[in-house]
Amino acid sequence: MERYDIAIIGSGPAGLSSAINAKIRNKNIIVFGNSNFSNKLIKAPKINNYLGIPNVSGSELKEQFQKHLEHMDIEIVNEKINSVYAMGDYFTLSANEKMYEAASVIITSGVEFSKPIKGEEELLGKGVGYCATCDAPLYKGKVVSIIGYNKEAEEEAVYVSELAAKVYYIPMYKDEVEFNSSIEVIRNRPTEIVGEKKVEKLILSECEVITDAVFIIKDSVSPSQLVPGLEMVGEHIKVDINMNTNIEGCFAAGDCAGKPYQYMKAAGQGQIAALNAVSYLDQNK
Amino acid sequence: MERYDIAIIGSGPAGLSSAINAKIRNKNIIVFGNSNFSNKLIKAPKINNYLGIPNVSGSELKEQFQKHLEHMDIEIVNEKINSVYAMGDYFTLSANEKMYEAASVIITSGVEFSKPIKGEEELLGKGVGYCATCDAPLYKGKVVSIIGYNKEAEEEAVYVSELAAKVYYIPMYKDEVEFNSSIEVIRNRPTEIVGEKKVEKLILSECEVITDAVFIIKDSVSPSQLVPGLEMVGEHIKVDINMNTNIEGCFAAGDCAGKPYQYMKAAGQGQIAALNAVSYLDQNK
Repeated sequence: MERYDIAIIGSGPAGLSSAINAKIRNKNIIVFGNSNFSNKLIKAPKINNYLGIPNVSGSELKEQFQKHLEHMDIEIVNEKINSVYAMGDYFTLSANEKMYEAASVIITSGVEFSKPIKGEEELLGKGVGYCATCDAPLYKGKVVSIIGYNKEAEEEAVYVSELAAKVYYIPMYKDEVEFNSSIEVIRNRPTEIVGEKKVEKLILSECEVITDAVFIIKDSVSPSQLVPGLEMVGEHIKVDINMNTNIEGCFAAGDCAGKPYQYMKAAGQGQIAALNAVSYLDQNK
Repeated sequence: MERYDIAIIGSGPAGLSSAINAKIRNKNIIVFGNSNFSNKLIKAPKINNYLGIPNVSGSELKEQFQKHLEHMDIEIVNEKINSVYAMGDYFTLSANEKMYEAASVIITSGVEFSKPIKGEEELLGKGVGYCATCDAPLYKGKVVSIIGYNKEAEEEAVYVSELAAKVYYIPMYKDEVEFNSSIEVIRNRPTEIVGEKKVEKLILSECEVITDAVFIIKDSVSPSQLVPGLEMVGEHIKVDINMNTNIEGCFAAGDCAGKPYQYMKAAGQGQIAALNAVSYLDQNK
């Protein structure tokens, strides 16, 4: 398997800044994210505090970033990394169906502003999960509920519906949802996941459903779930001024590394993380 | 005396980013620096790692910064701050002849790459100084040597020559130097400042001069000289991840706060410093 020098998880300003800096230093990089870069960025109505690019909308700033990446011949791999394992002198990253290897990792996965649902943390691994396609085979012929925070979650629902007996889909966004299959869409706010040893039912604001599994599909997995053993401070990854985490060779930058949640700060930290990852790689040659 | 909310010392990317962020938060700011922003920046031949502005020269990037400041109606005060004193709940800043007050301070003064001259540190305050115009009255009728790292130092030399009996001017840059007055220009590298209890002579690579004082005029004063009591780590200001220094209400960002010496990192830290200064001010209202 090809082993990359640096794997960058996230395509917001922190991830992109890491990418251009690592590429300038001739490192073999892979950047996981999506073609929009950041859903938060493209929705920003007006940004005036990104030094050098005054008075732009988020989508205009995204265009500037896009040009920079094109100029440097950097592409984003449209995959969602679900877990990162420290193997000693390298890392293994797993996407839904694929594995990757990298000598160092920079996490720039942003923050989820949604709070856990009651019961979510207690039943994690007991029917609650964050990757429906990963665990779908376990629920062949059973009832699965999918809480989707983005349009991409719909694809997971379709995939799961081919195996499960029944799929409930609970969209957490306003866009139209249309399925050709037997998926039942419930427009209700989920309030609690209930179960003793495993998930038994999902309670919503106006109804409840008997279900064997609840998958919660967010833009990003929480960093402590993404990288087992990663030290956190509250909901943020614990970093030092050089963007080192507690795991050697693993760096973090941007919103996931703490407040303020700002583009310029994220880009600056992305640069620091990349340059320190480069030093780390050079020392471990 | 007007008391500013935030005084920003330095007009490199860290200082400018601090300025736009503090201004957006409606703070009454003053930014000390120069109209070139940063001598280091305008001399950079090619910058490709400032996310969103690919493939530019330093002077092109400077133009982008200029436009941003104009858009936000921010002006740079062309004064050099020589010292900052923490007075409890505010700070006093002294420029050559003027005093300023601010409730908080952000230091973004960059780093000097020049090493101290032999004898410089030992004779500091005993004839060696960094502000010729401040101390000139002490050398009325005496011999003063000025080592100038920038064109602005020439103004100090002219001022001192009106009081001193004799002024030697040692330019550390290549530009033409022309004085109408009695100043003697020596194009030699200074190697040692000699004296027992006070400065007696300055030794240069090819000659030596008997002198009562040696003033070294650099782009920036070292932070520990600038702010008495400021905690350092080597040649950098000690900061935490929020850009706090050891002095409450005093923040630092950019090169002076540590490596890597990079524009994007500096701008990111400038933003963090400004937003934390704003929080500090709001808490102390």
